[in-house]
Amino acid sequence: MAEDKTYDLIIIGAGPAGLTAAIYAARYQMDCMVISPETGGSCAMAHDIENWPGFKGPGMELMQKFEEHAKSFGVPIRMDEVREIKKESDEFIVSTEKENFKAKTIIIAMGTKRRKLDAPGEDALFGKGVSYCATCDALFFKDKVVGVVGGANAAAMAAQILSQNAKKVYIIYRKSKMRCEPIRLNDLENDPKVEFRYNSNVKEIIGKEKLERVKLDTGEELQLDGLFIEIGGLPITAIAKELGVELSEKERIKVDKSMATNIEGVFAAGDITTGSNGFNQIVTAAAEGAIATLGAFNFIRKR
Amino acid sequence: MAEDKTYDLIIIGAGPAGLTAAIYAARYQMDCMVISPETGGSCAMAHDIENWPGFKGPGMELMQKFEEHAKSFGVPIRMDEVREIKKESDEFIVSTEKENFKAKTIIIAMGTKRRKLDAPGEDALFGKGVSYCATCDALFFKDKVVGVVGGANAAAMAAQILSQNAKKVYIIYRKSKMRCEPIRLNDLENDPKVEFRYNSNVKEIIGKEKLERVKLDTGEELQLDGLFIEIGGLPITAIAKELGVELSEKERIKVDKSMATNIEGVFAAGDITTGSNGFNQIVTAAAEGAIATLGAFNFIRKR
Repeated sequence: MAEDKTYDLIIIGAGPAGLTAAIYAARYQMDCMVISPETGGSCAMAHDIENWPGFKGPGMELMQKFEEHAKSFGVPIRMDEVREIKKESDEFIVSTEKENFKAKTIIIAMGTKRRKLDAPGEDALFGKGVSYCATCDALFFKDKVVGVVGGANAAAMAAQILSQNAKKVYIIYRKSKMRCEPIRLNDLENDPKVEFRYNSNVKEIIGKEKLERVKLDTGEELQLDGLFIEIGGLPITAIAKELGVELSEKERIKVDKSMATNIEGVFAAGDITTGSNGFNQIVTAAAEGAIATLGAFNFIRKR
Repeated sequence: MAEDKTYDLIIIGAGPAGLTAAIYAARYQMDCMVISPETGGSCAMAHDIENWPGFKGPGMELMQKFEEHAKSFGVPIRMDEVREIKKESDEFIVSTEKENFKAKTIIIAMGTKRRKLDAPGEDALFGKGVSYCATCDALFFKDKVVGVVGGANAAAMAAQILSQNAKKVYIIYRKSKMRCEPIRLNDLENDPKVEFRYNSNVKEIIGKEKLERVKLDTGEELQLDGLFIEIGGLPITAIAKELGVELSEKERIKVDKSMATNIEGVFAAGDITTGSNGFNQIVTAAAEGAIATLGAFNFIRKR
């Protein structure tokens, strides 16, 4: 079940970083493949994108444009999950469940997965009121009472979309002020449906057949039909770790200016890295993808 | 002729870096203005953009989208040329010929101007065979005969990219040996498609509807479909220098990870900087603009 050829570059992940890396690989005529279980990364889940220059609309629509762009240059995108990357002399073996592929260079652009609260009741009530994707599930809560946990842009965006459907939206955040884009905070502060519960943490999620209420560590209990947990992402680094890629304290892949990791021939891009001064945006992920491909191109040329 | 208010941020330059910085400033509800004699920067000159993810078309069209995006958030773009920036205690005074504006922070995003050969025919045949960007235009010269003018890394990389598409690549350089990385030179010397014309200068660029041939000062004439002039960009740094902003040996503005310069409150973004590992692309310029705005926002908040 193995192809015999050796790719110049295998890109793992098909969000903004991976797809931009693919576009650049095509521009540099590298023999390249993208492997990812899905396209669009966490961007595809965003309800409305307003900070990718020249575009306003759903994240899914933008990511379809990226994907079409890469495909128009003939870059294959294989829908599969990478299980392991091994280094064997000058090559890398990239393994999915059933197949192995060889590559001279790798770009790891797997992004992040949603972080969980790890509160009692969270797993049991997932899909029964507890959700990690407001864009996906907002419409199920028409005229209902919902809570959003978190203080960054993702939480603000979730509250905004929920407010268009629900009759009341509580924002529960552990700090004293949301740290999202001020324009979004301003919008929420002027929204009569929105109520803030600052300096508060969800202590317990309670319900039988479905979510009924949450207990906060302030002692307050909120009756809720839905709870949207939007507290950021955890970099998906298990595969990188096994390969020996060096991570930061915050579990991000350490990269240099060319997006190279500590392992020769392995580059990384997007939310998974320490790059772009920690600013995780579509445009910074895309730029990192471009720089990583140039790094891989130069690496092959030099060897 | 002076406004009395103090802007949070004045962005100088309206190419991909400046306009993205403006979009982010609006998202962060900063009181912001862009000043530039024109919009689009050098990107607007590219006759076809294929490396901005999700878009294919003329550079001008893409830059109009960026501009509309910034304007849709209410960011004013003033068509004027900045003559001087002065620091006065905690503020900056930005002067055009007739007006002065005050700002708490500055983003310098003035980009570069392409160094031209200043040969007869160069301007008339720009976009008709004469190009300043191999990454942008290489694919238009599949199986054609092209020339590259220059001897540094940019020229070598252009020749490498072109050799993957064109059937023949002449490298025309005024000195006796290319001064690019030896590994690149080695690669080019072993490339059967590449021929060198050392100790040669382009004297004249000839063609009617499109490029037909160039005359060298050695007397030789080369029949060419494309001529790539890769003799570097000139960062537009006179104003930054006068303000005391530190430059690299290559006259780029030195920036840290937050795109901050050596002068507190002054940030820089785009081709004018040392950022993005020296990879001057629309997507890297845009990312630098976003990061610079976050830097300016954090700078004001901390103060």
